[in-house]
Amino acid sequence: MSTPAYDPSNIFAKILKGEIPSHKLYEDDDTVAFMDVMPQAPGHLLVIPKQGSRNLLDADPAVLSKLMPVVQKLANAAKTAFAADGVFIAQFNEPAAGQTVFHLHFHVIPRHEGQPLKPHSGQMEDQAVLAANADKIRAALA
Amino acid sequence: MSTPAYDPSNIFAKILKGEIPSHKLYEDDDTVAFMDVMPQAPGHLLVIPKQGSRNLLDADPAVLSKLMPVVQKLANAAKTAFAADGVFIAQFNEPAAGQTVFHLHFHVIPRHEGQPLKPHSGQMEDQAVLAANADKIRAALA
Repeated sequence: MSTPAYDPSNIFAKILKGEIPSHKLYEDDDTVAFMDVMPQAPGHLLVIPKQGSRNLLDADPAVLSKLMPVVQKLANAAKTAFAADGVFIAQFNEPAAGQTVFHLHFHVIPRHEGQPLKPHSGQMEDQAVLAANADKIRAALA
Repeated sequence: MSTPAYDPSNIFAKILKGEIPSHKLYEDDDTVAFMDVMPQAPGHLLVIPKQGSRNLLDADPAVLSKLMPVVQKLANAAKTAFAADGVFIAQFNEPAAGQTVFHLHFHVIPRHEGQPLKPHSGQMEDQAVLAANADKIRAALA
């Protein structure tokens, strides 16, 4: 039941290498944040470490220690940017838990009272909407 | 839209002070883990910092850095203890996101293929079941 090996051909590794575009929100030496292209609510973003691990289970603990203050920073920025009532943080390990991309990532999802999350539809959000929402979050970070 | 102040009368603060019993799994200088008494799946546990914050949004970043390696440790132990296929990590900020106890906590929930999570029923699990499940996780930690 050990965690399978990290596969560097995953889509987030390609985003890190710049081979696939993203709406990037934040970057430091260890961490990148960008918009989720299939958002469950407006402002849904992802925070990932640059160091490859399949998920939380096989991550370097030191990577987690650097990652979480960035998750916090982005959570507060997303809450401000969307005048949200709350923020949901989710992290899925293995397909049975809902993981679909096998590079560790934390979901940061602004929540509003009475507005249920959209399901993972598999439908891409309009790029102009993602770009505008990314601008709001970058402004809140600044 | 700032985060309300921490209220030290919450139930997790009382667990930390030993005023309310819990099925404790792990403790170090900064962190405690114990069973969720209304589990969404067998082995559902919580990891909390000893330092009080309402949730992630107002936490000391240094507390988060110490907390996440413990979340990882407990996630791996719970996966082993329940021969789980995956692990779901969830953290709710404010009622709109599902938060009901206002002391920062991370949910660690073992997942099995084809077994949906139980809803938050508000119904307490049998104490003997919680005790037996806690023993399994402690054994996996040892």
